[in-house]
Amino acid sequence: MKPVGYWLVLLAAYCAFGSQAATGWGEEKSLADNLKDIVHKQQVAWNDGNIDGFMEAYWKSEKLTFSSRGETRRGWEKTRQKYKQSYPDKATMGMLTFSNLEVEPIGEEVAIMLGDWKIAGDKPAEGNFSLVWKRIDGQWVIIHDHSSSREIK
Amino acid sequence: MKPVGYWLVLLAAYCAFGSQAATGWGEEKSLADNLKDIVHKQQVAWNDGNIDGFMEAYWKSEKLTFSSRGETRRGWEKTRQKYKQSYPDKATMGMLTFSNLEVEPIGEEVAIMLGDWKIAGDKPAEGNFSLVWKRIDGQWVIIHDHSSSREIK
Repeated sequence: MKPVGYWLVLLAAYCAFGSQAATGWGEEKSLADNLKDIVHKQQVAWNDGNIDGFMEAYWKSEKLTFSSRGETRRGWEKTRQKYKQSYPDKATMGMLTFSNLEVEPIGEEVAIMLGDWKIAGDKPAEGNFSLVWKRIDGQWVIIHDHSSSREIK
Repeated sequence: MKPVGYWLVLLAAYCAFGSQAATGWGEEKSLADNLKDIVHKQQVAWNDGNIDGFMEAYWKSEKLTFSSRGETRRGWEKTRQKYKQSYPDKATMGMLTFSNLEVEPIGEEVAIMLGDWKIAGDKPAEGNFSLVWKRIDGQWVIIHDHSSSREIK
């Protein structure tokens, strides 16, 4: 039988980890604020020409799925490569703005975010997106993205 | 204090309800099969010119969201009206086929389904969709749909 001290250490570790996992980025912030912060960081990274920074919000897994224009890309690395191919430099990337963000928790560790995206620049485009978020290993990540474009009037 | 019989009745009721909620359409069926069945029924209803039948799979709530072409419709009734407007008769509806259905449980009572849709007929169209499912009051319903079109080659 293990000494009581062993269990106390385990308990302390569990509490520390559990509390970190439960609050994420800070005790005061709501889930909606936390997820909006991540998406805001994505916007900043994009407008800095930093696709790797933008990709940080996505689940680094082969199971990540990204749907748009009737097609689905699979895997974090492929999604990253596709972005780099489609947007080879800062000029092509243009200026990205996210707006009308809404967060809906749909399970203990799952949430949906709806929002609009807009790219200003040489190739202006806009539309909306649905992001499915899941907390994995204490971190909220986008596990699925479905984005679509609207006609610019 | 309540008699033991009272608690037994409560327990029996809980077991009966719990087991029904957990299995849905039958003990043997997996979640994936259950959700695919619902979507198959939608396909049958559509091809029968029955939009109300098709709409049965969606959450009957004002909080239902349906995104496509960069826009989001809100509410079951508005979604139904929009379908009736866009597809006034069986001929306009054409023949719908769903394919490549994949189901991924992402929480205890939440799942994503990805798949392809195709409409043959006067206005042929095809694309893919992401459905977010949630079990509400023991029933699996689509709480969010994001569909997009691909160019027909």
